[in-house]
Amino acid sequence: MRSLSDYTLMVEEAIASRPYASMKPEGLYAPVAYGWQKGGKRIRPVLLLMAAEAFGGRPEDFIKPALGIEMFHNFTLLHDDVMDRSDLRRGRPTVHRKWDENTAILSGDTMLTLATELVADVPDNALRRVLDAFNRMAVEVYEGQRLDMDFESCGEVSVEDYLDMIEKKTSALLGASAKIGAIAAGASEEDCGLIYEYGVKLGLAFQIQDDYLDMFGDPATFGKPIGGDVNNGKKAFMLVSMLERGGSGAEALREAMDIPAGDLRVSAVRGIYKRAGMPELCRSAIERYSRESLKALRKSSLPEQAREPLERLVAKLIDRRK
Amino acid sequence: MRSLSDYTLMVEEAIASRPYASMKPEGLYAPVAYGWQKGGKRIRPVLLLMAAEAFGGRPEDFIKPALGIEMFHNFTLLHDDVMDRSDLRRGRPTVHRKWDENTAILSGDTMLTLATELVADVPDNALRRVLDAFNRMAVEVYEGQRLDMDFESCGEVSVEDYLDMIEKKTSALLGASAKIGAIAAGASEEDCGLIYEYGVKLGLAFQIQDDYLDMFGDPATFGKPIGGDVNNGKKAFMLVSMLERGGSGAEALREAMDIPAGDLRVSAVRGIYKRAGMPELCRSAIERYSRESLKALRKSSLPEQAREPLERLVAKLIDRRK
Repeated sequence: MRSLSDYTLMVEEAIASRPYASMKPEGLYAPVAYGWQKGGKRIRPVLLLMAAEAFGGRPEDFIKPALGIEMFHNFTLLHDDVMDRSDLRRGRPTVHRKWDENTAILSGDTMLTLATELVADVPDNALRRVLDAFNRMAVEVYEGQRLDMDFESCGEVSVEDYLDMIEKKTSALLGASAKIGAIAAGASEEDCGLIYEYGVKLGLAFQIQDDYLDMFGDPATFGKPIGGDVNNGKKAFMLVSMLERGGSGAEALREAMDIPAGDLRVSAVRGIYKRAGMPELCRSAIERYSRESLKALRKSSLPEQAREPLERLVAKLIDRRK
Repeated sequence: MRSLSDYTLMVEEAIASRPYASMKPEGLYAPVAYGWQKGGKRIRPVLLLMAAEAFGGRPEDFIKPALGIEMFHNFTLLHDDVMDRSDLRRGRPTVHRKWDENTAILSGDTMLTLATELVADVPDNALRRVLDAFNRMAVEVYEGQRLDMDFESCGEVSVEDYLDMIEKKTSALLGASAKIGAIAAGASEEDCGLIYEYGVKLGLAFQIQDDYLDMFGDPATFGKPIGGDVNNGKKAFMLVSMLERGGSGAEALREAMDIPAGDLRVSAVRGIYKRAGMPELCRSAIERYSRESLKALRKSSLPEQAREPLERLVAKLIDRRK
């Protein structure tokens, strides 16, 4: 049986063999190559390949749609970095920093079209459904990003609204990755719906883990500065949960968030979260969504052996350090 | 036989009936509706409908791909306006002025995906070819925009390079509009190639007419300030032609372009262009491309009667005042 790193290697090799780095005009394609050729966990394309294989396909036959999904993901990062004015991504200058903002906008647009082309490289009888799943997912991602932006300027956000936002912004892409692999490999409508559910719930667990690591991760392995969400005033899971809960904890949190951005604010907030049991709340939410993810998977027609890599992926993702 | 305004009306009605203006989140969809619901010549969707009808389709059946093409066009305008820092479009504030830049980026991305969805609304047996034509055209448009940006910072541009750039940035979309209509209506590969050629050559004539009107148009009907290209230092057709020709005319033009942007520069350049016979050069280039456009059309299998609306469109576009 293939290990997670076998799939990842397959994706990395395919990415390395794409010709973008040498295509002209250089000002259009060099940022495309830069954006996706280095780093990233490659979870989404791996998920697509795993789902395709689980439903009887050969992963080798679905490399292009897998790359399309990874290209789409990197397109969203590129435009998000412009919108967030982020200077660094995976330890390197962001595209709009290394080149300029116009380059980031235009090369990002190019990545979206290239992603659509790659994703469309599936058998003719799967094309319509794959394309529909991809485009609907993309619209959800934009809606999620818009809600995230709207949250910044609105006072307080309910946990329900927060979960709706991350389901669109993050989970829909994981769900669609798995679903597109399943459709391309010829799975039934019902199985495609269940594997989508599996991916969406996995995505929710994944995002809450991300929010948790941003505050309680190990700076040595996390890969980003700890406390970024708190310093940017981002409405993340622990923040919206504590504010919704109200009381003196919420009061203390509001005060801590008024401290100027920096280590002092981060450690004040961390202390408040710890005392309020937020790490445990995260853990239990992550476990709940993981269970729901596995439950959807087990409702599918997949036999135990075919489910196994997808089950291992859940275990791996919720246990990660970065 | 349908007149040009019959097709235009059909497009306008279909645009008015799309639901974007009331969709949520409002911050995502209101700019989508704003961007395309007012104004514009609707040439590209009309071209698609005309081509579909010429090859035996009913225009009513191809409204969605026609809207997709118009949506794509407006997506490019929206992102171009951000890149050019333009404040006005069709007499109204641009999206990044009325809202903000992040909104323009994200709603533009949304328009690209919505455009792809609309264009994909064709019979299953045409889907693959329509999608390929659409995506390849989109990549050409990005390449053209990148070349246009690169031209701004490079010294002098040859007429050949200029024509290559506008073929990508402007003509490819007109070519693809016609071609997608033809594919969707079931035209042969050869006819699709010829109608693409028809559209591309029409696009070249159209762009040179645009460059001409920017300098010699009537301010009362043109709809934009006259001399915009000259004031922005844009490498347009007359500029690259005169500089390539060299001699004292080129020398005088270089000096005039050093005058600070404003009416003085525009009238100096206009005088130089007139004395050098640039209006006549434009006219002859426009006529040459129109002839080539009609020639490609006449090589197709279309009978004379079916060609007629497409021929009238050429005559109309090269004779326009705005």
